[in-house]
Amino acid sequence: ERLSTVAADAIELGPYDHYMQKEIHEQPRATADTLEGVIDAGVVPALFGSDAATVFAEVDSVLILASGTSYYAGLVGRQWLESLAGIPCNVELGHEYRYRDSIPNPRQLVVTISQSGETLDTMEALKRAKALGHAHTLSICNVQESALPRASRLVFYTRAGAEIGVASTKAFTTQLCALFILALTLAKQRGRLAADAEAGHLEALRQLPGSVQHALNLEPQIKVWAEQFADKDHALFLGRGLHYPIALEGALKLKEISYIHAEAYPAGELKHGPLALVDDKMPVVVIAPNDSLLEKVKSNMQEVRARGGQLYVFADLDSHFSATDAVHVIRTPRHAGLLSPIIHAIPVQLLAYHAALRKGTDVDKPRNLAKSVTVE
Amino acid sequence: ERLSTVAADAIELGPYDHYMQKEIHEQPRATADTLEGVIDAGVVPALFGSDAATVFAEVDSVLILASGTSYYAGLVGRQWLESLAGIPCNVELGHEYRYRDSIPNPRQLVVTISQSGETLDTMEALKRAKALGHAHTLSICNVQESALPRASRLVFYTRAGAEIGVASTKAFTTQLCALFILALTLAKQRGRLAADAEAGHLEALRQLPGSVQHALNLEPQIKVWAEQFADKDHALFLGRGLHYPIALEGALKLKEISYIHAEAYPAGELKHGPLALVDDKMPVVVIAPNDSLLEKVKSNMQEVRARGGQLYVFADLDSHFSATDAVHVIRTPRHAGLLSPIIHAIPVQLLAYHAALRKGTDVDKPRNLAKSVTVE
Repeated sequence: ERLSTVAADAIELGPYDHYMQKEIHEQPRATADTLEGVIDAGVVPALFGSDAATVFAEVDSVLILASGTSYYAGLVGRQWLESLAGIPCNVELGHEYRYRDSIPNPRQLVVTISQSGETLDTMEALKRAKALGHAHTLSICNVQESALPRASRLVFYTRAGAEIGVASTKAFTTQLCALFILALTLAKQRGRLAADAEAGHLEALRQLPGSVQHALNLEPQIKVWAEQFADKDHALFLGRGLHYPIALEGALKLKEISYIHAEAYPAGELKHGPLALVDDKMPVVVIAPNDSLLEKVKSNMQEVRARGGQLYVFADLDSHFSATDAVHVIRTPRHAGLLSPIIHAIPVQLLAYHAALRKGTDVDKPRNLAKSVTVE
Repeated sequence: ERLSTVAADAIELGPYDHYMQKEIHEQPRATADTLEGVIDAGVVPALFGSDAATVFAEVDSVLILASGTSYYAGLVGRQWLESLAGIPCNVELGHEYRYRDSIPNPRQLVVTISQSGETLDTMEALKRAKALGHAHTLSICNVQESALPRASRLVFYTRAGAEIGVASTKAFTTQLCALFILALTLAKQRGRLAADAEAGHLEALRQLPGSVQHALNLEPQIKVWAEQFADKDHALFLGRGLHYPIALEGALKLKEISYIHAEAYPAGELKHGPLALVDDKMPVVVIAPNDSLLEKVKSNMQEVRARGGQLYVFADLDSHFSATDAVHVIRTPRHAGLLSPIIHAIPVQLLAYHAALRKGTDVDKPRNLAKSVTVE
C-alpha cells in the first residue's frame, strides 16, 4: 500500500513537462530528506538498522553489487569507503558476479544498491553471495519492503520519493548520499573520524541540498550546450577518480534518452586508444571540478582541439581553465570537496534531458528500456 | 642492443601488407614461444625468476596494474587467478590507482603488464605501490631490460617478438599466456592444482598455438563481415565473464584503427541502458563461445532483432545457436575451455584489421596514437 501512496503523490507533474525533469528538480528535496537522519542523529550505525553496530564491528571489507546507474553510484562509494574509512572495497555488476568463481570472505559487508529493490540481477547476486557464506548484508534501496531490503540484514532507505522516469536521476544522487553516510559511519566505527572532521562533513552535508540547487540553476547555460549536442551521433565523457563514475553516468543518460552514442573513459585512458576516434564530429565532455584533471589531460586536450574536437568542461570555481572558442566551460558556483560527484551529477542529467528534448525522443519512456529490470 | 636486434628482425614484412597483419598471423609462433618454458619445465615458480618461490609463498592476493589492452589482459587474468588459484585479485588502471587513496596490503603481489615495459602511467603506479609498502612485484613485459622489469622483483617476459603496429595484437595474447601460467603456478603453490589437472592444463597449452592457427583460418569469413562494418559509424560488443574483456579488446581495436565508435558492455548490462542505442545502424557483436551467454541474452537478442539490429556472433562448436538473416555466426572449430579468451581474441583483431583496410585508414599508425604511451 505504501508504494501506491507514494506513486499517487508523484503523479502530479505540476509545472513540469516530464517526470524526468520533475525528478531532476526534486533533488534538493530528495537529498535533504535522505540526509535528514544523519543530520539529526549524527553519524551512528543505527541509521542502517538496529543490528548495524554489531555487523559493522565484524566487517573488514565491502563488496558492492549493482547494475546500471546504481553500479556507478557504487564506484563512487568505493572511493569514499577506501579514503574515509580505510576499508577495502570492491564493486561488481550483479550479473557478472553471480556467474563467476569468486572468493567469499565472511567478514565482508555485501552492499546491494537498487532503486526499486527488485532488480533481478542484483537479487540473484545477493542470493549467490549468501549461498557462498556471506551473512553481513546491507540493501540501499528507494522502495520500502521490496525484495532486496527484505533479503538483507541491514537497510538504508533513500528518500527520493517515487521515481517514474526510466532514466534514474534522484535515485542516483540519493544513493550517493547513502554511500557517503556509510563511509562516514564505518570511518567512525574504525576510529578514523575525529570529532572535528565529523562536524565538518556534517556541515558539508547540510549545505549539499543548497549546492544541488545551485547546480540546477545552471540549466539555461546547459540548454545552450544541449542544442549543440542534438545533431551529434557521438560523444566522449571523461573524468578521473571520483568523477569518472559521473562521466559514466553522463554518458549513460545521454544514451538512454537521446540515443546519442556517448561513451565514458577515465581521462587517463584517452591516449591508450579512444583518442583515435576524436574528430570535429566528436564532442568531448570533461567532468573536471578542479585543476588536477585538467593539468593531466592538457596535452590530450591540445590534440582534441588540433583535430577540431569541441571540449565541454564542467568545472567549478576552483578550476582555473579558460574558455576559448573550442573549449566551453560551465562552472558550478561552489567547490564541494568529497561531495563534488553528487553536485556534478546534476549538469550531466540536465544535458541529457535537454538534448533529448531537442531531438524529440520520449524522455520518460525511452525505447527498448524498462524502469525496473526484473528479467535476466 | 637486444631491442635493436629484435627490431631489425621484424622489419621484414614478408608476404604481409602491414605490420599489424603480420603480427596477427605471428600469434601461433608468439604463443608457442611464450609457452615454451612451462611446457618444457612444467608449472614451477622459477618461470617468474629465481626469487619467485619465496615471494609467491608470502602473497595472499594479487593487484594488477595496467592500461589499455594490457588492462584488458589483466581483467581476464583476474578471473583465472580467482577460479584456478583461489586468490583474490583486483585490476586497476595505473593512472587511476596512482592518484587515489587505496589500502595497501604488504602481502599482495603487484603485477604490472606493459608490452614496452615503459608505459609511464604503469611505471608511476608501480612507484606509488612501492611507496605504499608493496615489496612483492612482478612485471609481465615484452621488452627485455625495460623500465618496468628493472623496477620489479620478478619478471615474466612474453616472447611475442618486436611489435611494430600501434594496435597491440600478439602482445595481448602472449600476456594472456603469461597470466594463465601465473594462475597455474599460484594454484599449485597453494595446493589447488592436482597432478592430473596440471597435466590437463599443460596439454591444453600445447594445443593452444594450433587452435590460434585454426582461428586465423577464419579470416575469409571475417573479411566478409568486415565489409559490412566498414560503412558503420557504431558498433556494440558484448561478452560475459571471461569473454567480456575480449569484447572490450575487440571494441578498442575497431576504435583504434578503423575509427568506428565501438563500445563494449558485459552482456548483462545491455538492458540496463545501452539497448536504447540499438537500431538498424548498430551492429551488435557477441563473443559467445558457448550457449550459456546466448541463453541469457536471448530475450535481448530478440529485441535487437526487432529493432532491425544485426547480430554478429563469434561462437564455437559448442554453441548451438543457429544463424538467420539477422544473426550471423562464425564458429571456431574447437572449444578451448578456460583458454577460450585467447582464441577469441583472434577474430576480433581480424575484424578490426579488415574493417580498417576497407576504410583505407593507416592501419599501423592510426591517427592521434603512439605505440608506447610514455607521457601522461
